[in-house]
Amino acid sequence: MSVYTASTTAPVNIATLKYWGKRDKTLNLPTNSSISVTLAQDDLRTLTSVATSKSFSEDQLWLNGKLESLESERTQHCLQDLRNLRAKLESGDSSLPPMSTWKLHIVSENNFPTAAGLASSAAGFAALVVAIAKLYQLPESASEISKIARKGSGSACRSVFGGYVAWEMGSEADGSDSKAVEVAPQSHWPEMKAAILVVSAAKKDTPSTSGMQHTVTTSDLFQQRIHNVVPQRFEEMKKSIQDRDFDLFAELTMRDSNSFHATCLDSYPPIFYMNDTSRQIVKLCHQINEFFNKTIVAYTFDAGPNAVLYYLQENETKLMAFIHQVFQRNSGWESKFSKQDLAAFDSYFANTVAPEMAFDLDQDMHQGVSRVILTQVGPGPQDTNECLIDEATGKPKN
Amino acid sequence: MSVYTASTTAPVNIATLKYWGKRDKTLNLPTNSSISVTLAQDDLRTLTSVATSKSFSEDQLWLNGKLESLESERTQHCLQDLRNLRAKLESGDSSLPPMSTWKLHIVSENNFPTAAGLASSAAGFAALVVAIAKLYQLPESASEISKIARKGSGSACRSVFGGYVAWEMGSEADGSDSKAVEVAPQSHWPEMKAAILVVSAAKKDTPSTSGMQHTVTTSDLFQQRIHNVVPQRFEEMKKSIQDRDFDLFAELTMRDSNSFHATCLDSYPPIFYMNDTSRQIVKLCHQINEFFNKTIVAYTFDAGPNAVLYYLQENETKLMAFIHQVFQRNSGWESKFSKQDLAAFDSYFANTVAPEMAFDLDQDMHQGVSRVILTQVGPGPQDTNECLIDEATGKPKN
Repeated sequence: MSVYTASTTAPVNIATLKYWGKRDKTLNLPTNSSISVTLAQDDLRTLTSVATSKSFSEDQLWLNGKLESLESERTQHCLQDLRNLRAKLESGDSSLPPMSTWKLHIVSENNFPTAAGLASSAAGFAALVVAIAKLYQLPESASEISKIARKGSGSACRSVFGGYVAWEMGSEADGSDSKAVEVAPQSHWPEMKAAILVVSAAKKDTPSTSGMQHTVTTSDLFQQRIHNVVPQRFEEMKKSIQDRDFDLFAELTMRDSNSFHATCLDSYPPIFYMNDTSRQIVKLCHQINEFFNKTIVAYTFDAGPNAVLYYLQENETKLMAFIHQVFQRNSGWESKFSKQDLAAFDSYFANTVAPEMAFDLDQDMHQGVSRVILTQVGPGPQDTNECLIDEATGKPKN
Repeated sequence: MSVYTASTTAPVNIATLKYWGKRDKTLNLPTNSSISVTLAQDDLRTLTSVATSKSFSEDQLWLNGKLESLESERTQHCLQDLRNLRAKLESGDSSLPPMSTWKLHIVSENNFPTAAGLASSAAGFAALVVAIAKLYQLPESASEISKIARKGSGSACRSVFGGYVAWEMGSEADGSDSKAVEVAPQSHWPEMKAAILVVSAAKKDTPSTSGMQHTVTTSDLFQQRIHNVVPQRFEEMKKSIQDRDFDLFAELTMRDSNSFHATCLDSYPPIFYMNDTSRQIVKLCHQINEFFNKTIVAYTFDAGPNAVLYYLQENETKLMAFIHQVFQRNSGWESKFSKQDLAAFDSYFANTVAPEMAFDLDQDMHQGVSRVILTQVGPGPQDTNECLIDEATGKPKN
């Protein structure tokens, strides 16, 4: 039998201007525009291979080695949209194989533990949609493809681009103008790095899908956020990226994370995503910026206790002097820094920071953290020769 | 020498609609009106005796046995206002001793550890002002006196009344219409009880005086709270008290506590008063209300991690079945409940709650709590024969 395959990788993105609230749940249309930084894929990525063949009897998905259902309405939306675009192509060129009528096999793997609580659905749906678009040889632009990914998982639309990405909320009822666009490519501001402090959560958080609608319907402060706070911040943050103004970018990022979590707390009953460790990290970041009398680090928290710290390469020693001092017992350092690098951070702390430091470091903070992930801004989905599907059988290789 | 003395007790009050933000720092004029419940004085009260005599050489204050300064601008405001009112009396009746020109000795004691982190300044300033007004035999109404207490500590104006109290923010620049009024006396709704869970705080919180101005100047959501949320809530909460509608009173109380803490989190840098134990208590209260499918408890948190739970006498066994189950290892139970009472709570939990309970209780929650204070709605400042000042010497007895 002839089996057609295509593969791609897709990145994780971490919002600096948060998506929280849908105006249309079926189409995943947001109540406000958002902005994110796409992270490097050597640290965090989804690899997805797709195959189609006249001989396949049903759509099937293997996720991290396990057969999973494709029944979810969101996944079906994505597959239907992609098949419709393929059908349009086929109707104009009878030489094309009628893939739009064939079943799909999808095999997907993450290179990071989903246990880390890092939203993997964004990378997952972006990879799914981009891989199938590639298989179908669709001519649509990345922004057009992002609308399909958006229907799978809102934030997935931002993972279709690399670098600095905006999700424009749009105003059309059918979502035709709610899409991701590139604010700036990775190459515009390649010095942006990220340190993710994976915080151990005692309990499962409220799922973001239900959590955000709970906020929309119950928070008195939420309307102020989406109507009077975010629209101006959206323009300011885009400009801060275009101007490579880290000071402004960092303040807007920290303010927006706090604003988002404030509307969660203002929900009824309240939703809590940050815990005491998250708050200790927030205070530490402000202490670090105060110590250097300069904004060298920004924190942001998604719908969970994990902290993502953004900083510029030029300030790495200054920041890591503190972060390694506090979190050196946590795993994740050796994969990115040499013994010499780490020694340099420690000596900078001992010789330059400690003598001047006017506050105490929370010595127990590291106990609330399970691991450190050190990464940076990265590109969008990448072609790959690695294929997870056996072209002979159309099934997963492993 | 002839020494004139007067003594009074004054209560603590815990806001159910929060005071957070000043429009005038000198006069303690708030950015929104607030509502509170006055708590019983056998559990929490300040006893203040004042004395004046031609022979006194300086104003002096003994607070909980220690000589303290009276220099603070706020205290001086209170003393000056009271002396001005006394002088007016004297000018109309030459037979009155010219106390307005004499020095004051003030002796004040709390019956609760200030360590508990329960705002004692409200009871303290209310007692100070009421005792001197009594010494001076001022004819002014309690609301008039509350304006003077307000200048000492904003929330102190609410401790001039018992029962259910509103602080009307007023609009005059001189504060002449920013005063406390009685929403309903204790006798209107005497079944209101309060359980205070004193949460051990690792670090000192941001002082509320500086904290609230930080929120006023940096929170994007704060203006929404004071202009569009609190004014309507103020009217609804007063009505819920007049109607004895606990369900509505409780929801408004919980929503307002969350709204206040949300604006703290939205401040930049953010302010955190609630900790993980506070949040566990919030979740427990919602679980309890869900379990009974009825709102039997409301939580509220001031500028610190302590939880104050309001409930009605009729629901005491239902609520305490849970609260004693979780916090039985904490001190404070025996002073209010007999062994039989506590056994009744435990058996209600074992026989009625446990078999039906669909969630787990956080077994470690009690570790974050230092003690339980069980109290209820109470009256305003009380006359007392107990005098802390030796009339012969004009000095503290002890």
